[in-house]
Amino acid sequence: MEYQVITPEGVEYLKSVTAPDRVFYGDEIEYDYAHDEMPDFGTHAPDVLVEVLSTEEVSKVMRYAYEHCIPVTPRGAGTGLSGGAVPIYGGILLCTEKMNKILEWDLDTMTVVIEPGVLVMELANAAQEKGVFYPPEPGEKTASVGGNVMTNAGGMKAVGYGVTRNYVVSMECVMPNGDIMQFGSNVAKNTSGYDIKDLVIGSEGTLCIATKLRMRVIPQPKVSYTLLVPYPSLEQCVGTVPKFINSDLNPTAIEYMPKSLLDDAAQYLNKIMPHRTADSYLILMFDGSSVEDVERRCDDAAQICLDNGAEDVFLCNTDERKEAVWTVRGAALEALKASTTDMDECDIVVPRNRIADFSRFADTKMEETGIRISIQGHAGDGNMHIQLMRDDMDKKLFEERCPKLMEELYAQAKTMGGQVSGEHGIGHARVGALETFMGPQMIALYQAIKNAFDEKHILNPGKVIR
Amino acid sequence: MEYQVITPEGVEYLKSVTAPDRVFYGDEIEYDYAHDEMPDFGTHAPDVLVEVLSTEEVSKVMRYAYEHCIPVTPRGAGTGLSGGAVPIYGGILLCTEKMNKILEWDLDTMTVVIEPGVLVMELANAAQEKGVFYPPEPGEKTASVGGNVMTNAGGMKAVGYGVTRNYVVSMECVMPNGDIMQFGSNVAKNTSGYDIKDLVIGSEGTLCIATKLRMRVIPQPKVSYTLLVPYPSLEQCVGTVPKFINSDLNPTAIEYMPKSLLDDAAQYLNKIMPHRTADSYLILMFDGSSVEDVERRCDDAAQICLDNGAEDVFLCNTDERKEAVWTVRGAALEALKASTTDMDECDIVVPRNRIADFSRFADTKMEETGIRISIQGHAGDGNMHIQLMRDDMDKKLFEERCPKLMEELYAQAKTMGGQVSGEHGIGHARVGALETFMGPQMIALYQAIKNAFDEKHILNPGKVIR
Repeated sequence: MEYQVITPEGVEYLKSVTAPDRVFYGDEIEYDYAHDEMPDFGTHAPDVLVEVLSTEEVSKVMRYAYEHCIPVTPRGAGTGLSGGAVPIYGGILLCTEKMNKILEWDLDTMTVVIEPGVLVMELANAAQEKGVFYPPEPGEKTASVGGNVMTNAGGMKAVGYGVTRNYVVSMECVMPNGDIMQFGSNVAKNTSGYDIKDLVIGSEGTLCIATKLRMRVIPQPKVSYTLLVPYPSLEQCVGTVPKFINSDLNPTAIEYMPKSLLDDAAQYLNKIMPHRTADSYLILMFDGSSVEDVERRCDDAAQICLDNGAEDVFLCNTDERKEAVWTVRGAALEALKASTTDMDECDIVVPRNRIADFSRFADTKMEETGIRISIQGHAGDGNMHIQLMRDDMDKKLFEERCPKLMEELYAQAKTMGGQVSGEHGIGHARVGALETFMGPQMIALYQAIKNAFDEKHILNPGKVIR
Repeated sequence: MEYQVITPEGVEYLKSVTAPDRVFYGDEIEYDYAHDEMPDFGTHAPDVLVEVLSTEEVSKVMRYAYEHCIPVTPRGAGTGLSGGAVPIYGGILLCTEKMNKILEWDLDTMTVVIEPGVLVMELANAAQEKGVFYPPEPGEKTASVGGNVMTNAGGMKAVGYGVTRNYVVSMECVMPNGDIMQFGSNVAKNTSGYDIKDLVIGSEGTLCIATKLRMRVIPQPKVSYTLLVPYPSLEQCVGTVPKFINSDLNPTAIEYMPKSLLDDAAQYLNKIMPHRTADSYLILMFDGSSVEDVERRCDDAAQICLDNGAEDVFLCNTDERKEAVWTVRGAALEALKASTTDMDECDIVVPRNRIADFSRFADTKMEETGIRISIQGHAGDGNMHIQLMRDDMDKKLFEERCPKLMEELYAQAKTMGGQVSGEHGIGHARVGALETFMGPQMIALYQAIKNAFDEKHILNPGKVIR
């Protein structure tokens, strides 16, 4: 099936089913809509940008696109890191940013119904005002919840609270042909037909468009403490992680940072850290319902760290101290960007006990290629944010060596039973990596599933699969 | 595509790729293999029964069936309640009962690799021996874990620990054409392509056959207390449930039983209950890591119950008392069976705060139809086990009125935002109910997904969808 280019009549039709001031064509479209937060992966402007306000509008736009075979790329807040919301085939960019209402709280079932354009931080704040808690906390808090659902975003607290998937109760979606469907429902258990809801979560807008979400919230933790733990070696640092996973201490977050990165980030932010001379740092968070409970778990955790070679354990139980540690952790990516010329990145995930092995492999590759590799991130769930930095290497040489190095990192992850992406998704940037990783049988199955939803391949073409 | 009948040569071929003493044909097949635990839904013998021992055997059997277009029904322990493992089209019954090895513990990642025929109680016991905990605990503990995964079984502790889905890390599966594939992997976060694993969980063996499972285990709770709470009315009893859901008391189980059922079950078992004169009973379980922690939560829970109209709260903190309460709860179905002549059943699930409303609706239907309806079950997750009992009603009249009554119960669940089945699945017994409930668009999508896996429809035909 050949994609069609939208006609002036088509643009008028889209205006008639939405509103004239919410449809933009050609030069009227701002450059921002041609990329997400990794413009390095390529910029592509849509032919027409449509800002939708309701399920019915989305349905009418899709019905038109389906009949005329025009590609449609859904976009939330545009904060992705894999090009998932970039309209690489042009066509219609369908923006749900203004579908941003929190529609209904139901604290009896601890759920909230929202439109997909609500931002993660808006939902978290609204939950707090209601006295409840929305736990998923990806680094990018200005992401839309709809986007988070479509990439199954994780974040630092996934160790304790799980990923976005765990908070999606049900979704209203518009299918590629414009049909409106409901996946999942507000029940705690379900074995009634195929689990389409979980298939759609993480599908990066390639199967259908979410127009309404019922999300789960949980009781607010009353107390939260943080531990900063210096170690003389990476092995000892990440080697402690499994001791927490099989303890009943239930940590909320387990992050790690090498000394250099902690230093860079602290300097970048002008923050003074309680400790800065160790080789590697573990950062632990414990949430709980009482001071006694959290103190007991912090004490036990500290003992585990010391028994496994930690140099010391710093308790951060004041807002100021906690803020210092977590802002420095949060600034890692920015500090890295500021420290180099060009950068490539991925977010490989490996089994929770293989981080040290993976890091050692990366070290040997660093020596081989001369490319500086920074690894940090979510020690508690094996998800690493890996940056390849050019520094003063010749640009052409860096661009030659990078793809091969990436390939080797992915291959190593596969050997270890890992996956291509823990939380950033595939978008169009990692389609090739996914193909190599999964092999032709799995890609054929993905293709068949894509066809089951979207036989004309008009929805977010070129993402996840070709 | 027309199904073919297996030939004598076919039977010989199956023997050659498995073993002569694990292939049974015609009259050699025991009657047990013609039904699950609800023979009322119909018995159907397979043409040939194959007991498999390995992934490779499953693959070879499927490749043969695929090439010759012979229907294959996978079966674990055969303890289902919806006819999911009953070979309604004859053909091959592929039995994974003897694939029952626990293959590998990995306590660093808190996972265990097993074959699908391992029984739930075997896995739970093996976990206990390792000092860890496998939480899913459906009523039927002689079910196979593979079967539990394929129906996403729940059980009483789903309130606190979640359903079987939450414990499946990855699965090796054989596709209808014999291909061997791997879905999911041993990572804590994943956004790498479509989530096939979650689609396969709960698919009742209609998409592929699980041949190896990596399951998650968690730290053992050190203390577990139970509360038996009498209430003067059902409304007050189940009305207390949302107070727990939005508290931070984290109950493990929230069950309810009407007086009559508690009485029947206690009499049936010859057990003396601490209380038996109230209208309705809530049974709560609290697991935790220390006596102080569990005692505090029990105290808080007791106060919530009393504030919401409970007559009293009985703490069961000895093995003997706990055992009495939970055996009586567990004997509900048997006691009901013993109390009547014929029975039909379903396991509708509604939002957690709608149980009282649903029960009142059922009461009016009981008056209208003269059919005794018993409702009990998982108050904490809105999942009710509903039995329609004939008692001394004319058999023909009962069989006439039952289907219409079931239809009305399903329709009411739909109005309330519920679902057809919380944990028993669709099998072939509820295919019609699912069709009515979901409507033609959803069934068409299910059909397209089925085609993506099994375009010849040879795998477990007639289950979930027609």
